Amino acid sequence: MASSITYLTTTIDGARGLKPYKRKLTRRLSDLRGYFLNKGLVEEILSKGENPIIYEVYEIPQEPTDGLLSIGCTVIYPGKVGDEYYFTKGHFHTKESASEVYIGVEGEGIILMQNKEGETAYSRIEPNVIVYIPPGVAHRTINVGSGKLVFLAVYPSDAGHDYGSIEKLGFAKLVVERDGKPEVVDNPNYVKAS
Amino acid sequence: MASSITYLTTTIDGARGLKPYKRKLTRRLSDLRGYFLNKGLVEEILSKGENPIIYEVYEIPQEPTDGLLSIGCTVIYPGKVGDEYYFTKGHFHTKESASEVYIGVEGEGIILMQNKEGETAYSRIEPNVIVYIPPGVAHRTINVGSGKLVFLAVYPSDAGHDYGSIEKLGFAKLVVERDGKPEVVDNPNYVKAS
Repeated sequence: MASSITYLTTTIDGARGLKPYKRKLTRRLSDLRGYFLNKGLVEEILSKGENPIIYEVYEIPQEPTDGLLSIGCTVIYPGKVGDEYYFTKGHFHTKESASEVYIGVEGEGIILMQNKEGETAYSRIEPNVIVYIPPGVAHRTINVGSGKLVFLAVYPSDAGHDYGSIEKLGFAKLVVERDGKPEVVDNPNYVKAS
Repeated sequence: MASSITYLTTTIDGARGLKPYKRKLTRRLSDLRGYFLNKGLVEEILSKGENPIIYEVYEIPQEPTDGLLSIGCTVIYPGKVGDEYYFTKGHFHTKESASEVYIGVEGEGIILMQNKEGETAYSRIEPNVIVYIPPGVAHRTINVGSGKLVFLAVYPSDAGHDYGSIEKLGFAKLVVERDGKPEVVDNPNYVKAS
């Protein structure tokens, strides 16, 4: 249909993310060096020549302009480093007023949230569950299931991603397996920002 | 969990919309008086005391602030007025830069899009299909299936809704049943904005 209306469509293709997509990000264990509690174990795995994919993000980004929305579909692989489940790096938005909406597609996960004061909250994410993440809150998603965790994200295209703060400070909570079940526990290495 | 992080969660409950939701909008045939091509037939139905629900919107709105996102789940009932399928009123956003993301949940539909110059485009919407509606484009959704059409919408909370322009001008296209199938045809009553 001849028209200057530049709409876009894509399809949620389960654990294969979006089809089509514009950009794909793959994060392997080596990209998350320093993020897991058991750093020695991470180095041991990597030294054996193993470097598993932890997660992939299929994106349809828009120019960073007020009012535009970007779409992402994240696929977190099942797995653990020791008893700590695989997770995304987690980030604050650079634009302080930017919120985000997550929509669960497949699998079972937990979204960890943490504000600048170090206060935390968490929510489950699973098929048909929608989570609204308010502004000023860093968010990390953890796959606590036995299959891939797939969820959609819609966010202002000018939100921006600040990974540095979380890389430096970490999250105050960890999600680990205890007696075969996920549990949110304190991160012994976390030092509250002062 | 004690925390000042005001995240929200809700669940997509199929044709029952969102659970929980903050606001529910119900549009009956009498609310869409003047929108269907066959106005005489609309009046005839209403004069019999019938006033069917055409669609419902379950919303989790946020304050109209830059960066915040509102969530809506629209349920369009199956049905036709003559050969014209049930549809939403359709609107432009008041904020010209505001885009919107639609995600199909249940049923089969068509999204009609139209810019200020009267150019049109359309896209199917069905489960797992995501449609990105760019800024400056009015959008109406039509249920062309035999069951309810359910879709999610995520949009900037300060997008604003301009229903008046479409109420006055209408869409240049209609979606009607022809030989048991949906077809997008010209609206004989449409007068191009000059």
